[in-house]
Amino acid sequence: MKVITTIKEMQTEIKQQKSEGKSIGFVPTMGYLHEGHLTLIKQARQENDIVVLSIFVNPLQFGPTEDFSTYPRDFERDRALAECEHVDYIFHPTVKEMYPTEPSVKVIVQARTDVLCGKSRPGHFDGVATVVSKLFHIVMPTRAYFGKKDAQQVAVIEGLVSDLNFPLEVVAVDIVREEDGLAKSSRNVNLLPEERKQAVVLYKSLQEAKRAIDQGERNPNSLIILMNEMIMSNSSGVVDYAEIYSYPQLKPLEKLEGKIIIALAVKFTKVRLIDNLILDIE
Amino acid sequence: MKVITTIKEMQTEIKQQKSEGKSIGFVPTMGYLHEGHLTLIKQARQENDIVVLSIFVNPLQFGPTEDFSTYPRDFERDRALAECEHVDYIFHPTVKEMYPTEPSVKVIVQARTDVLCGKSRPGHFDGVATVVSKLFHIVMPTRAYFGKKDAQQVAVIEGLVSDLNFPLEVVAVDIVREEDGLAKSSRNVNLLPEERKQAVVLYKSLQEAKRAIDQGERNPNSLIILMNEMIMSNSSGVVDYAEIYSYPQLKPLEKLEGKIIIALAVKFTKVRLIDNLILDIE
Repeated sequence: MKVITTIKEMQTEIKQQKSEGKSIGFVPTMGYLHEGHLTLIKQARQENDIVVLSIFVNPLQFGPTEDFSTYPRDFERDRALAECEHVDYIFHPTVKEMYPTEPSVKVIVQARTDVLCGKSRPGHFDGVATVVSKLFHIVMPTRAYFGKKDAQQVAVIEGLVSDLNFPLEVVAVDIVREEDGLAKSSRNVNLLPEERKQAVVLYKSLQEAKRAIDQGERNPNSLIILMNEMIMSNSSGVVDYAEIYSYPQLKPLEKLEGKIIIALAVKFTKVRLIDNLILDIE
Repeated sequence: MKVITTIKEMQTEIKQQKSEGKSIGFVPTMGYLHEGHLTLIKQARQENDIVVLSIFVNPLQFGPTEDFSTYPRDFERDRALAECEHVDYIFHPTVKEMYPTEPSVKVIVQARTDVLCGKSRPGHFDGVATVVSKLFHIVMPTRAYFGKKDAQQVAVIEGLVSDLNFPLEVVAVDIVREEDGLAKSSRNVNLLPEERKQAVVLYKSLQEAKRAIDQGERNPNSLIILMNEMIMSNSSGVVDYAEIYSYPQLKPLEKLEGKIIIALAVKFTKVRLIDNLILDIE
């Protein structure tokens, strides 16, 4: 496994690999790897000749009041995990390498962002789309792997790739959960012990909503009230949003039908957690 | 020579060529080819295994009051010229193929655009950067060729490629001129006969400015007055701008030094012409 820190060297390596006909699987991350990431890496490993993992905490996608500086980092641990998973290259640039000067261009996202996480994080998805565009040009993947946990991110990336005709395939991978159902996340380490126990309420609320749908409920508002009540009574977390949209268009629905997403964000003391469920309703 | 109209087929062809180790030279155009374009194609032909010419009049880079519908088009003539120059592929998509739905993302240019043509064409360079990003993903060139006539466009494209790390080289090619000095352009056909004779005044003004600099002039304002006077007294054209900046940063200068651009835009009855001179001042 090679650790590469410069854009030029990464591009040179990839061009060499591609000239030999190798397929490239790419897993872009902000590091502090957990099993969710490892699932993406495993799938990339199965489906490609070469696997590239990027580890870069992208300042562009954090708002001024957000957790860029406290976002957890542990490169040596990440490196060991990547080695175990037979990653071929870790791309681990500095902020200076990625943004050497004030950029003259950026990629902006003008749809699918005014709901869910996008609503409370203005500019976040512009930062994501810009860094992902850069990384796609640096790693030139055949396939790029994203977790469905950030379902809005998947919807945005699919729009980016399709609208700008990036020559690659976006692979969306199912959410990986802790034993109790909590979706895995780098940010879970910032939960207080008591909050960690309560945090399963996100998953349980989604399951409760699914049960209601299975029993015939088709009114999104009833489900939203149900989930809000469950979260309020079972945790100290504050609901940031509990929303239901068509997927991947992320448009509001009067009545549940077709492919939908039920999505939650809940704020705890030092961390905000998200979870979602994508369902196909007949 | 193959004419390709779909994105999918173009990407498939290019991937095949690249898998055989071929280099790709790309000349993006809006068609109605003139010798300026042919110069780009000839240089691409010399430097690459495969040459791709795109012909696409991009609605995104025209303002609501601009000449999208009257922009000259003659595909059969372009095809014949491309064949003469041994182009391998013409990529000639419809607007519907390039923009099948309202795009969810776009590329915006936040520097180098508030001067020269950008100033009077808000959003123009966003449209250019967006379509060029798409074309780069479709054609995946090793080298992309642009004429220095659109010097601001070259500056913007160089920023785009550098900031988003496109894995390709931008090649900027010198302006090609008619015998009397008028810079070649598809739009020259829209000059009235009398205006065609006068239009050489753009080139002559730039030469006059250069002569003054050679004689020691270092004050940009004196040169701007000189050029404005020359154009007013020798043509019916109206000066849209006569400006001098550092190049490629396109920042104002108090005193001429280093690499500079002297740039002109002049409006005639049915057409607006541009020309420029890039100089290195000791």
